Amino acid sequence: MQHGTAKDLTRRETFELFTPVTVRFCDTDKLGHVNNVSIVSYIEAGRCDLYYKLMQEAGTDATIDFVLARAAVDFRREIFYPGAVEVGSRFLKLGNRSITTGYGVFLGVTCVATAECVNVFFDMSARTSIAPTGRLRTLLEAAVAR
Amino acid sequence: MQHGTAKDLTRRETFELFTPVTVRFCDTDKLGHVNNVSIVSYIEAGRCDLYYKLMQEAGTDATIDFVLARAAVDFRREIFYPGAVEVGSRFLKLGNRSITTGYGVFLGVTCVATAECVNVFFDMSARTSIAPTGRLRTLLEAAVAR
Amino acid sequence: MQHGTAKDLTRRETFELFTPVTVRFCDTDKLGHVNNVSIVSYIEAGRCDLYYKLMQEAGTDATIDFVLARAAVDFRREIFYPGAVEVGSRFLKLGNRSITTGYGVFLGVTCVATAECVNVFFDMSARTSIAPTGRLRTLLEAAVAR
Amino acid sequence: MQHGTAKDLTRRETFELFTPVTVRFCDTDKLGHVNNVSIVSYIEAGRCDLYYKLMQEAGTDATIDFVLARAAVDFRREIFYPGAVEVGSRFLKLGNRSITTGYGVFLGVTCVATAECVNVFFDMSARTSIAPTGRLRTLLEAAVAR
Repeated sequence: MQHGTAKDLTRRETFELFTPVTVRFCDTDKLGHVNNVSIVSYIEAGRCDLYYKLMQEAGTDATIDFVLARAAVDFRREIFYPGAVEVGSRFLKLGNRSITTGYGVFLGVTCVATAECVNVFFDMSARTSIAPTGRLRTLLEAAVAR
Repeated sequence: MQHGTAKDLTRRETFELFTPVTVRFCDTDKLGHVNNVSIVSYIEAGRCDLYYKLMQEAGTDATIDFVLARAAVDFRREIFYPGAVEVGSRFLKLGNRSITTGYGVFLGVTCVATAECVNVFFDMSARTSIAPTGRLRTLLEAAVAR
Repeated sequence: MQHGTAKDLTRRETFELFTPVTVRFCDTDKLGHVNNVSIVSYIEAGRCDLYYKLMQEAGTDATIDFVLARAAVDFRREIFYPGAVEVGSRFLKLGNRSITTGYGVFLGVTCVATAECVNVFFDMSARTSIAPTGRLRTLLEAAVAR
Repeated sequence: MQHGTAKDLTRRETFELFTPVTVRFCDTDKLGHVNNVSIVSYIEAGRCDLYYKLMQEAGTDATIDFVLARAAVDFRREIFYPGAVEVGSRFLKLGNRSITTGYGVFLGVTCVATAECVNVFFDMSARTSIAPTGRLRTLLEAAVAR
């Protein structure tokens, strides 16, 4: 990947991992469409899937937690009940003590929302932010470069 | 079916319609499992699916609404994230102005919750409860007898 | 109280404990009113408040958990955004290994929903249901009798 | 206000409008704290309050809707059940066809989260974005300048 090339989160091709999420009736609001807060819960479903699969692959670094520091969501189209979406998730940028991830919420081929999140690496026993090392960092560097 | 035989909502065989629901991370609570309120939202997903399909089949009776009057849920086993459940839904008993429906929430073959709901038939233009007639009643009678 | 007299959950006078709950925009659904699942979350807010206060008073029995086994909710009136409700909560009936609680959701003086829940006493270390003893049972017997 | 001065959303003094939100048990997640999606619902409670009060004051421009286009949330501290927060909300920047709003979520004097949202003005009859005029624009200009 050329340095500085931003990923286009509105395209399915940007993602390898897709998490299915079924739309529930109570996700709608009085405006008749799926509420924005529900869309944020879909993106969380993708993010947790991404981190669970990473930690499974990393194996030994289980004492590290990823604390969500920031979530920025762009709402692009309305979603209606009933239906199901797929959330594409990927790693975007690796910092020293934090990582940025990107998301696209798709209704078939149509992108209805995108998001970027920042998580901070956190040592749960020492209760401080840390820089990941070893196999976890190697995996993250490879994931960001893809 | 013998008259008066109660349906066993813990068995998959009791149901023809199954609605898939994906478990979201935010469905969990501080006890570590899926929160009971989230399980109620799964059952609602099944109930709405059941009524949407009925109304599609009934065609012309679209001015009738089904107002939820009562929901009784039995929580039988814990559910954990991540995962997906299937909600079995069926009509149980047809009254003059109300109908009772039954639900089973399944994690594979294991029943994790059952529920019975009562909905009242409601004429949206007249704003009163009504007794369904014609094709809608015929469909409901057949569904209850199955 | 005369033995066997059922409590009228639609009356504020039935309750001593009231838990305020603010209605959120995302509690509404596409029918324009507060969704039934949200009302169940209001009742949970009352139930947790009731048990937290009991455990504070009981002090020493903190290894006992109250596992929700059943919730039966009667939806009596619509609720609309914006607003706030108060959930009245009380103990109704003490069994050997379970307890029944009652709830009324009030919008001012109007009761919009009532509920009965059954919780099972659970020993968290032994992982089995148990019969509460000592100060906890005394407190529960007094609460049911009020 | 001097041009370019950013508002400090972590300070209560930045806000005139505060919306109370009660924390519900089901807002927690398996990490033991209030889930991030729930915090987004608190911010929505503030945003809707802000727009409802604006529209009440504006009176005649009721055919305009405010469509949420973007929400960026910074999670600064954990929130725990039970409790209640106050969401401070204010207008930050007025564009031609959009408006930026700012939020601070407070637990007493402690700021636990901040957010910025962008809403697009939308003519509901013409189904297109529009530039607000008249009394509504005057009110918004005054609100941003405060």
